[in-house]
Amino acid sequence: MDIAGLLTSAGINIAICVVLLSLYSILRKQPSNASVYFTRKLVPEPVKWSDPFCLERFVPSASWIMRAWQATDEEILAAGGVDAVVFMRIVVFSIRVFIIAAMICILLVLPVNYYGQDMQHKQIHAESLEVFTIGNVKEGSKWFWTHCLALYVISCSACVLLYFEYESITKMRLAHITGSPPSPSHFTVLVRGIPWSQDHSYSESVEKFFSTYYPASYVSHQMVYRAGTVDKLMKDAEKMYRVLKTVEPQCREISMPCCLCGGTTHSFKVLNNEAESVKSKISDDGLQPAQREKERPAAFVFFRTRYAAVVAAQVLQSSNPMLWVTQLAPEPRDVYWSNLSIPYKQIWLRKIATLLGAIVFMFVFLVPVTFVQGLTQLDQLSHTFPFLKGILRQKFMNQLVTGYLPSVILMLFLYAAPPTMMLFSKVEGNVSRSGRKKSACIKVLYFTIWNVFFVNILSGSIIRQLSVFSSVRDIPTQLAKAVPTQILHVYVSKYESGGQFWPIVHNTTIFSLVLTQIIALGVFGIKRSPVASGFTIPLIFFTLLFNEYCRQRFSPVFKRSPAQVLIEMDRQDEQCGRVEEIYDQLRSAYCQFPLIARDLSTSQDLSTAGNTWQNKDQGSSQDPESLKPGNQLVKLNE
Amino acid sequence: MDIAGLLTSAGINIAICVVLLSLYSILRKQPSNASVYFTRKLVPEPVKWSDPFCLERFVPSASWIMRAWQATDEEILAAGGVDAVVFMRIVVFSIRVFIIAAMICILLVLPVNYYGQDMQHKQIHAESLEVFTIGNVKEGSKWFWTHCLALYVISCSACVLLYFEYESITKMRLAHITGSPPSPSHFTVLVRGIPWSQDHSYSESVEKFFSTYYPASYVSHQMVYRAGTVDKLMKDAEKMYRVLKTVEPQCREISMPCCLCGGTTHSFKVLNNEAESVKSKISDDGLQPAQREKERPAAFVFFRTRYAAVVAAQVLQSSNPMLWVTQLAPEPRDVYWSNLSIPYKQIWLRKIATLLGAIVFMFVFLVPVTFVQGLTQLDQLSHTFPFLKGILRQKFMNQLVTGYLPSVILMLFLYAAPPTMMLFSKVEGNVSRSGRKKSACIKVLYFTIWNVFFVNILSGSIIRQLSVFSSVRDIPTQLAKAVPTQILHVYVSKYESGGQFWPIVHNTTIFSLVLTQIIALGVFGIKRSPVASGFTIPLIFFTLLFNEYCRQRFSPVFKRSPAQVLIEMDRQDEQCGRVEEIYDQLRSAYCQFPLIARDLSTSQDLSTAGNTWQNKDQGSSQDPESLKPGNQLVKLNE
Repeated sequence: MDIAGLLTSAGINIAICVVLLSLYSILRKQPSNASVYFTRKLVPEPVKWSDPFCLERFVPSASWIMRAWQATDEEILAAGGVDAVVFMRIVVFSIRVFIIAAMICILLVLPVNYYGQDMQHKQIHAESLEVFTIGNVKEGSKWFWTHCLALYVISCSACVLLYFEYESITKMRLAHITGSPPSPSHFTVLVRGIPWSQDHSYSESVEKFFSTYYPASYVSHQMVYRAGTVDKLMKDAEKMYRVLKTVEPQCREISMPCCLCGGTTHSFKVLNNEAESVKSKISDDGLQPAQREKERPAAFVFFRTRYAAVVAAQVLQSSNPMLWVTQLAPEPRDVYWSNLSIPYKQIWLRKIATLLGAIVFMFVFLVPVTFVQGLTQLDQLSHTFPFLKGILRQKFMNQLVTGYLPSVILMLFLYAAPPTMMLFSKVEGNVSRSGRKKSACIKVLYFTIWNVFFVNILSGSIIRQLSVFSSVRDIPTQLAKAVPTQILHVYVSKYESGGQFWPIVHNTTIFSLVLTQIIALGVFGIKRSPVASGFTIPLIFFTLLFNEYCRQRFSPVFKRSPAQVLIEMDRQDEQCGRVEEIYDQLRSAYCQFPLIARDLSTSQDLSTAGNTWQNKDQGSSQDPESLKPGNQLVKLNE
Repeated sequence: MDIAGLLTSAGINIAICVVLLSLYSILRKQPSNASVYFTRKLVPEPVKWSDPFCLERFVPSASWIMRAWQATDEEILAAGGVDAVVFMRIVVFSIRVFIIAAMICILLVLPVNYYGQDMQHKQIHAESLEVFTIGNVKEGSKWFWTHCLALYVISCSACVLLYFEYESITKMRLAHITGSPPSPSHFTVLVRGIPWSQDHSYSESVEKFFSTYYPASYVSHQMVYRAGTVDKLMKDAEKMYRVLKTVEPQCREISMPCCLCGGTTHSFKVLNNEAESVKSKISDDGLQPAQREKERPAAFVFFRTRYAAVVAAQVLQSSNPMLWVTQLAPEPRDVYWSNLSIPYKQIWLRKIATLLGAIVFMFVFLVPVTFVQGLTQLDQLSHTFPFLKGILRQKFMNQLVTGYLPSVILMLFLYAAPPTMMLFSKVEGNVSRSGRKKSACIKVLYFTIWNVFFVNILSGSIIRQLSVFSSVRDIPTQLAKAVPTQILHVYVSKYESGGQFWPIVHNTTIFSLVLTQIIALGVFGIKRSPVASGFTIPLIFFTLLFNEYCRQRFSPVFKRSPAQVLIEMDRQDEQCGRVEEIYDQLRSAYCQFPLIARDLSTSQDLSTAGNTWQNKDQGSSQDPESLKPGNQLVKLNE
């Protein structure tokens, strides 16, 4: 491929980009689309195109880009949460590193490469791309210090930027923890591997265990039920509701979720004695034993303070580590209910099975890659598709097919990876949507690294096809784009991880840097430049040392919440006297069955209402079905 | 080397073994050596050789071996603790696996190898060793299923044995935790990275932090002082002691440690007001500020219950993970005081530095290995040492030099590894002796694996020299022997880890098994036996799966103590009314300076008296200097 071919590719990419942006700009101005494009208002903006024949509506404009760009971190934080800010930071970080790398490479490295050998240069647009690479510099040249310097500048600036990003995101995360309103997930622990007992139901076991060992901090709990029996339970509950209504028409506060979810039969406290007797009668009639059978060995346990919940989640509970396994509960709207029924003992096996599945998928993916590689050979292409012969004789089409088509086909194949990995992560048994996506995200990441860096060893020149649209350093952006995103202006996010995916980005960037440095070391070795090689080794060492420092200094805050912060928050709650209010919310926060939503219209807290669409959205967050409940929620919240 | 050479080596080894055992048998019968050989009585035995000229005293006997062999696990547990039992289990486990491997190899594999090719066999003692290896079986032979079967039998029996060992050692560890008397280390947390403040001393900071965030469970604390200032502090303390004695001769309970170690000035509570005023006067006079300067940012913090201590040790305390770093304190006699002064911020750098040091040492070790390899070449040997020419012409000496000498020299070099690794582990900054030894142990392990398995790729036939005394599967024994041991009959152990080194043994055994399987897979591939290769792959997979299961099922108990168990123990203490007694012991348990020992002769608890020799033993536990205080302790305990 020559410069002209590269420019053709770039031109097509830019043209497609402009067309898509224009389309977006026009479509978002149509009043009928307002509910799609303005579900979340990043920059508050009145819908002013009331005139249906206004010309402005059909002319693309760029002002929204400027407005979106000018939005400060605080505005994004207020509108989209920490995750949104971190996502924006990743994009900005990638652009910064890319600009620095582009500057130093164009101004310093490219000229050195171009004049690297004593040769007669062609006109620049007809030059082969090879002339601009390090391959053009002759062996043992004194000019390799420029490449080494470029490596130092890029690595150091990336590390400095990473450090400040990590520092500020850590601060943001801490501020998020302290500043967020009391969330049920802070007070709740998910318990799995509840031991089976002949004498007690799972619910009784949980109550016994936690009231014995955590008498001061245990509030109540809520069992998880077999997903398949939801309908049956609903009928039972309705029957029970009718029975209770005939017995005591004046009874207050009968809320369905408690009848449904068992365990916390708190709502019955307000009933008078007659009702109590009816309840026990029903229990004797065998309704409760039936419910018992549907219980799964998993439960949400509510604690009095955040600190108590964190402690219960971190401590090893039982002398058999496969029993009473605790972890902090995900947010109510983040819970992946169907996976909660999986016995904990299976989880490790499922993890291994999906790991193997993902590895097999990576190898199966080699098939399309080698097929695409075949396409890059022009004569082979015209042999496979004889009707293309005439077209391929034209110079422009030739450039298009060899320079652009293979990368497009490969990209289309690459799009198959994220859904496949999401499927694997579902089978894996993650208990939260965010955990599932994080797991899929890491799998996609390994998949991309494998494909970009290592498959090319097996299948040759694919790397050049890929390099048109991806470079070593923008993997974080690729990653962030590949995974359904987590898009600010439109989608209502289902969870807030508090920037927990930043460490993945950090580690990937360090990995990319070190890999670049190692490749450079190899090239300097081949080109016989001992000075440049010698200077690259300490750079690798210091990059790894920097990574270790960040791992020590910042990373623990992303894994565990600091006790100091939690205790302070618990005390503030106590001083403000909102403890009882929080307990009340806790009892209804985690409900497996969507019936509860009807009673929640008065709730102030978004998260408690999140259950409304929990069973509707089985796929990615880009599922258009999930938009409508999201809209309702926003209205509720306003 | 032929069979005769191998037998010569084995004969020499056995002869040396018999001589050493006889020497031991005779020496232990001498009354003057009783204090050396019977410090710890594994099998109680009266010293009956009172007659100085009794013949029996000078005749070696084997009855003690039988008695030692017949000792049950319970007897060893009572005499030597869990670590001793686990050590014995490792030896027994290794012997069992070795016997199974030897049986199946001699009965099944050796004959197949021997008759693997159609060839004329020599007399068996003159056969080369090559004839007995798998190398002698011809390519594509149908008899490779015997090797595959042997691999299956050995792997399966090793896994089954490992499983039962892991299970019973886990139970033993749990019984050890519940059954052991209240130890100060259960209630104590070591805090490092105390932030520096202009207004407060470190001691005040600790008191403020823990009484703020752990008001219900915090008892008191004890600072760590700069090691260099011990003498100065001692003088200060003595001065203070004299001042107080003149002021109030009747004051009860002035115990030195509290004056020395600052922070917990609890003993002063019993003084009357005059004494209190003197104390504050001394403080005003500037004695305290001097002491403040000597404080290091590390402290032992005492908690009311075991559970509170475990929680404080596991939770992330501060939003800066480099500050207020907590971990469960080692036993008082296990504390490595000089390393406590190291600022916590240095630890990660020290760890990296020692890791690099250990890697460099591994490569430097290649020099003697290649030198020894030179020795195995007979002609090169007689060229290097011309005076050996005459001797080497004799057949026996020839066998001795080629078959035995190189391995002896290599062994002598290998003996340099453990002390070097101990030095590295000291520099690393471990805060306990056991931690230091564990770290050294793992380094020695990697070193041995590197030398036994990988160096032979670089330096050829060394593996054959090593294989005379070590096989793949007895690495755990090698490991257990290489590290100073943890020896039952003689040494008083300085700490009890509760079998915490078992997971290392388990992992090493799995590593060895998988490596053996992979090597076998390679050999089957070279020998073109697809069936044997095909059957080996699932074996590798299931071995790894088994390891993962054990990691899930047993390993967490070796890292963290189960909350259930700890809470039950705390409640028992409360019911027995020994809580106050424990608190009193806690305050004097961790004392940096040995003066305390004088006041401890009445103490019932061994561990509190352990400080007496803390500064004397700087090296390994085999240091004979450490024996005398050990004797005193045993007497104290009896």
